[in-house]
Amino acid sequence: MVPQWIIEKKRDGGQISEADIRELIDLYAKGEIPDYQMSAFLMAVYFKGMTFDEVTALTDAMMRSGDVLDFSSYGCLTADKHSTGGVGDKLSIPLAPLVAAVGVVVPMISGRGLGITGGTLDKLESIPGYNTQLTTEQFSEVLAKVGCSIIGQTARLAPADKKLYALRDVTGTVPSIPLISASIMSKKLAEGAAGLVLDVKCGRGAFMKNRDDARTLAKTMQAIGRGMGRNVVALLTNMDSPLGEKIGNTLEIEESIDVLKGKGPADICELTMALAVEMVLLAKLAETPEEARAKLEIALKSGAALNKFRDMVIAHGGDPRVIDDYSLMPQAPVKLDVCAAAAGYVETIDADAIGRMVLLLGGGRRQVTDSINYGVGVSNLIKLGAEVKPGDRLMTIHAASEPEANALIASACDAVKLSSTPISAPTLIYERI
Amino acid sequence: MVPQWIIEKKRDGGQISEADIRELIDLYAKGEIPDYQMSAFLMAVYFKGMTFDEVTALTDAMMRSGDVLDFSSYGCLTADKHSTGGVGDKLSIPLAPLVAAVGVVVPMISGRGLGITGGTLDKLESIPGYNTQLTTEQFSEVLAKVGCSIIGQTARLAPADKKLYALRDVTGTVPSIPLISASIMSKKLAEGAAGLVLDVKCGRGAFMKNRDDARTLAKTMQAIGRGMGRNVVALLTNMDSPLGEKIGNTLEIEESIDVLKGKGPADICELTMALAVEMVLLAKLAETPEEARAKLEIALKSGAALNKFRDMVIAHGGDPRVIDDYSLMPQAPVKLDVCAAAAGYVETIDADAIGRMVLLLGGGRRQVTDSINYGVGVSNLIKLGAEVKPGDRLMTIHAASEPEANALIASACDAVKLSSTPISAPTLIYERI
Repeated sequence: MVPQWIIEKKRDGGQISEADIRELIDLYAKGEIPDYQMSAFLMAVYFKGMTFDEVTALTDAMMRSGDVLDFSSYGCLTADKHSTGGVGDKLSIPLAPLVAAVGVVVPMISGRGLGITGGTLDKLESIPGYNTQLTTEQFSEVLAKVGCSIIGQTARLAPADKKLYALRDVTGTVPSIPLISASIMSKKLAEGAAGLVLDVKCGRGAFMKNRDDARTLAKTMQAIGRGMGRNVVALLTNMDSPLGEKIGNTLEIEESIDVLKGKGPADICELTMALAVEMVLLAKLAETPEEARAKLEIALKSGAALNKFRDMVIAHGGDPRVIDDYSLMPQAPVKLDVCAAAAGYVETIDADAIGRMVLLLGGGRRQVTDSINYGVGVSNLIKLGAEVKPGDRLMTIHAASEPEANALIASACDAVKLSSTPISAPTLIYERI
Repeated sequence: MVPQWIIEKKRDGGQISEADIRELIDLYAKGEIPDYQMSAFLMAVYFKGMTFDEVTALTDAMMRSGDVLDFSSYGCLTADKHSTGGVGDKLSIPLAPLVAAVGVVVPMISGRGLGITGGTLDKLESIPGYNTQLTTEQFSEVLAKVGCSIIGQTARLAPADKKLYALRDVTGTVPSIPLISASIMSKKLAEGAAGLVLDVKCGRGAFMKNRDDARTLAKTMQAIGRGMGRNVVALLTNMDSPLGEKIGNTLEIEESIDVLKGKGPADICELTMALAVEMVLLAKLAETPEEARAKLEIALKSGAALNKFRDMVIAHGGDPRVIDDYSLMPQAPVKLDVCAAAAGYVETIDADAIGRMVLLLGGGRRQVTDSINYGVGVSNLIKLGAEVKPGDRLMTIHAASEPEANALIASACDAVKLSSTPISAPTLIYERI
C-alpha cells in the first residue's frame, strides 16, 4: 500500500476499496502509517465524504482493531443506547436500570465529558466509590448478576478509533458524518449488544445543528449496524434547550435518581421512557410499545428500577446511601439564584450557553487531562414556556465560590430568552428512524 | 495560537490572517506544530484555496525561514529563470551562460529530478567533477567571476519550504496552485535575483494539464513576486511532447552544448532564445525584444556563450573537455533504435510516457534516495509533424543492458502516435504574461 495514493484517490472523489480501508486502519493502528498521512486522509474524507461501503469497511476495521465483546449467550436480550450528546443529557443513568428491571441486559460503555457536554462516567463518579473502570471479566460478572453495568471504554476496545479520534480532535476533522458514524458504531458494535437505540440530538446544544444532518447521521449509523447484523433504531430528539432542571455531575445523579423515584422532570421522564420502550422492543420483551411502556411503568412504580440502580451502584463499589441522601455526593458551597429582570414567557434556553457556564464553573473539561469539580452546576432551571415575572427564579448556580457564581449572572440571564407572548412547549422527539 | 482553529477556519473557507500564517510557518519550521496538523491544514488549502494576501504571507514566511541572498550590488542585472518542469527540459543549462555572455548575472539554484522529470543538477553532474553543492560564498565568487552559476538548494535556503514540500509529497497535497506558487516563489525570492522569468509548462508531460490552470499558476506567482518588489515575466509553454531530441542526463548536456554551438534542435533553440530575451529585457540590457535577440545571437555566433559555459564548468570543478568530446561523460553501453511499424505523420509524442521510460532505464529517481544512471535515456527522438515510413527510426534507446532496452520497445512505439494526414507543427509558446 502506498498511503498517498489512497489519500489522492479520496481527495479526487474516488472510492477506496474495502481491502485498502482495512489495511489503512490496520497499519495506522500499528503505527506503520504516520499521523500526518492519516490526518490528510481524514481531511479529504471531510470534503469528499464516504460511500456506504467505505464507511462500513471503516467501522468494521476500527471495531476489529481491538476486543469484540460477545454477549450472544443472552440472545436478543442485550440492548444498548447511544446518545450523540447534549447538555443535561443524563438519560443513560436512569435508563439502564429501568430496562434491566424488566429483563433487558444492558452492557453499556460510556465516555467522559469534553467541552460543553458532560460525560456519564464523570456523573457516576460523583457517587463515592463508584468504579467505572472494570475489566471485561468484571463487567460480564456485573451484567450476569445485576443485568446492567455502565463502565468506561477499555484500552482494548476499538483502539484504532481511540487513536483516530484523538487525531481528529486536533486536526479539524471531527464534524464529518461518515467519521462520526464509524467512530460511534465501531465502539458500539464492539460492545456486543444485539440491539441498539440511537438518541441523535439536534439543535443549538448538539453537534448536529439541523434535522437533515441529524437524520443523515442516524440513517448512516443505522445502516452500518444493520449491515453488521444488529437491530438499530434511532430517535431524533430536540437539543435546543438543556434536558431536565439540573446540569452538573452530582446534580445530574440527583435528577437521575429522581426519575427512578418517579419524580423527575417531565422531559427527562418522557425521553427516558421513549428510549426504554425501544430497548424493551429490541430485546423482544414486549410485542407493542404499549406493552413495553406498561411493563416499564410497573418497574418504576414498584421500585424495581430504583433497586436495579442500587444493585448496580453496589456492584461497582459505590455508596448506595446516596439514593436517599444526596448530600453524600460532592456539593458546591455557594448556591446563587438568578432571577428574571423582566416579565415574559420562556422562549429559548440556550443549551450551548448553559453548557459553557458549567464548564466555566469547573464542572467540565477543556482538555482531557483537566480534573473536574463534581459539585458545581445549575439547578432549578426554568422550563420552556413558563411564564415569569420580574424576580422569579430562572436557575440556581452552584459554584465553588461567590465570585465564580457572580461572574456568571449575566451569562445566565442571557441564556434565557423571554417572549412577550405565550410559548407552546417544544417537541421533544422529532422522529423515529 | 491553537493550530486546529486555523485548520478549521481554512476548512470552513475563512481567510487566515498574515500574522497567523507567519506564526504557523515559524512554529512548523521549529517543530512546534506537528506534521499531522500541517498536513490537515494543507489538505484544507487544497480544497479551499488561498487569497492573494494569504499566499503572499505564506511565501514571505517560507522565504524568511532561512537565508535570503542579496545581490542588490548588481542592481537590476541579476535575473533568474524557473521552469515548472517537463520532460526534456534542459533549458537552464544553455540559458544561463547565454544570457551571462551579454551581461546578465544569473544566480540560479536548481533541483534534482524526481519521478518523470529530470533535474538540472543531475544533468550537470554528468560532467565529471562538476560540483553543484557550493557554499553561499563560493556561489557569490563564481557569479562575480563568470556571471552565472547553477547550484543546488542549500539547507539554509527556505528550510520551511523544504520541510513542507516533503510533507506535501506524501500527503496528496502537491497539486494546489497556492501551495505550488508559494513553494516556488519562496525559493526564487530567497535566491535574490532582481528579475525572474517563469516558464510555466502545460500539457500532457507537465504538472499543469490545461492552459487555464497554468495561467492561474503563472499569474499567482507573478503577483507574489511583484508584491515583493521583483520583476516577473511568465511564458506559458507547450509540454505535450518532450523538448528536444535527447532525454537523459548526459544526453541533455550534449544537447545543451549543441544549442550553445548553434546546432541544437529547433524547439530547444527557440525556447531558450525566448526566455533569454526576457531575461535580457529584465536586466535592462536591451530596450526591445529585437535588440535583445540581436545581442544574444551575436553571443551565440561569436562563441561567447559557449565560452561562458566552459568558464562555469571550470569554476565548478568540472572537466571542460566534455564540450568537445561528449564520450567523456557517462555513456550507456547499449543503443537500440526503435522504428516505425507503419507509415504516417507524427501527431503526438507522449512526454509522460517518454519520461517514464527514462525513469525505468535508471535515468531518474522513484524516491529521493535513489541513485541514477547518467548515461541512459532516449536520443534521436522524432519530431512532431515528421512523415515516417515503416522502418524509419522513431528514437534510440540508451540502456544499461539489452534486456532493459528490449523491455521498452513497446512503450517507445506506443509513445509515438501517428496520423494518416499531415500534421502542422505545434505552438511552442502559448502566451506571455
